[in-house]
Amino acid sequence: MPRTTETASFKFNHTMLRVRDPEVSIKFYTEILGMDLIDKKVNDSFTLYFLVFEHGSEVTTAENRFGREGVLELTHNHGTESDPNFAGYASGNSEPGRGFGHIALTVDDVDKACERFERLGVKFQKRPSDGRMKNIAFILDPDGYWVEIVKGYFP
Amino acid sequence: MPRTTETASFKFNHTMLRVRDPEVSIKFYTEILGMDLIDKKVNDSFTLYFLVFEHGSEVTTAENRFGREGVLELTHNHGTESDPNFAGYASGNSEPGRGFGHIALTVDDVDKACERFERLGVKFQKRPSDGRMKNIAFILDPDGYWVEIVKGYFP
Repeated sequence: MPRTTETASFKFNHTMLRVRDPEVSIKFYTEILGMDLIDKKVNDSFTLYFLVFEHGSEVTTAENRFGREGVLELTHNHGTESDPNFAGYASGNSEPGRGFGHIALTVDDVDKACERFERLGVKFQKRPSDGRMKNIAFILDPDGYWVEIVKGYFP
Repeated sequence: MPRTTETASFKFNHTMLRVRDPEVSIKFYTEILGMDLIDKKVNDSFTLYFLVFEHGSEVTTAENRFGREGVLELTHNHGTESDPNFAGYASGNSEPGRGFGHIALTVDDVDKACERFERLGVKFQKRPSDGRMKNIAFILDPDGYWVEIVKGYFP
């Protein structure tokens, strides 16, 4: 079915994940994965962090982040990072809470990217050498969400 | 912290959600949201569906879908659609399974988009007129995942 003019402007702008400790998560997504933190919205009980991969000469801002795809929104409900009774968030890949699967990054070289993750102490759900699918890996973010690492398209 | 050359190729390629019945979900994501189904991978026990919003003259294929952002991957574990004991997937927004939040679409006109969703029988988590934030809405996909509808950036 062809897209209608009514949906012609639509874009898949972002994906939102809740995180326990933004200090740990922002460090992971910027320093380890290489995203840029481009916006932060502080509310009474929660703070939102927006991250993107910048490509070419683009500069993503608080305003124009609504004009692109591939934005990651991290929600921090204040207090979870220091609450001893907070059980942590479900990654979506086991019961209870199975449903959400993962986010995925494309990279130019899966093995090299994973060697670097290994060096940086990142936890793996699946190394490239594990299992049947040698060309992909899954690493874990600080909350245990799966991040797939797969080769990009470089024509 | 500046991005390193080691992560310069990285892109946020896709987000994966599990769905109970692909027939219902594909209809929702293509006919109601306006995405294009551009790839399908059938495995023994599961099938993967890949959807994108095409913009301008781009044509996303099974091969070059690894070169862009904003891809939605839907995983169908065969049999869930007809299993009376299948409890359904957690949306991530209530216990148990709280963690994953939502995916978000930007649109040119939130109110018009929502009037159309209403006409098409889509369920709402939050209409634009509900609550304090009048400029956003949350609709529910067939599995109950939240899809945020927010105004895009049109300079």
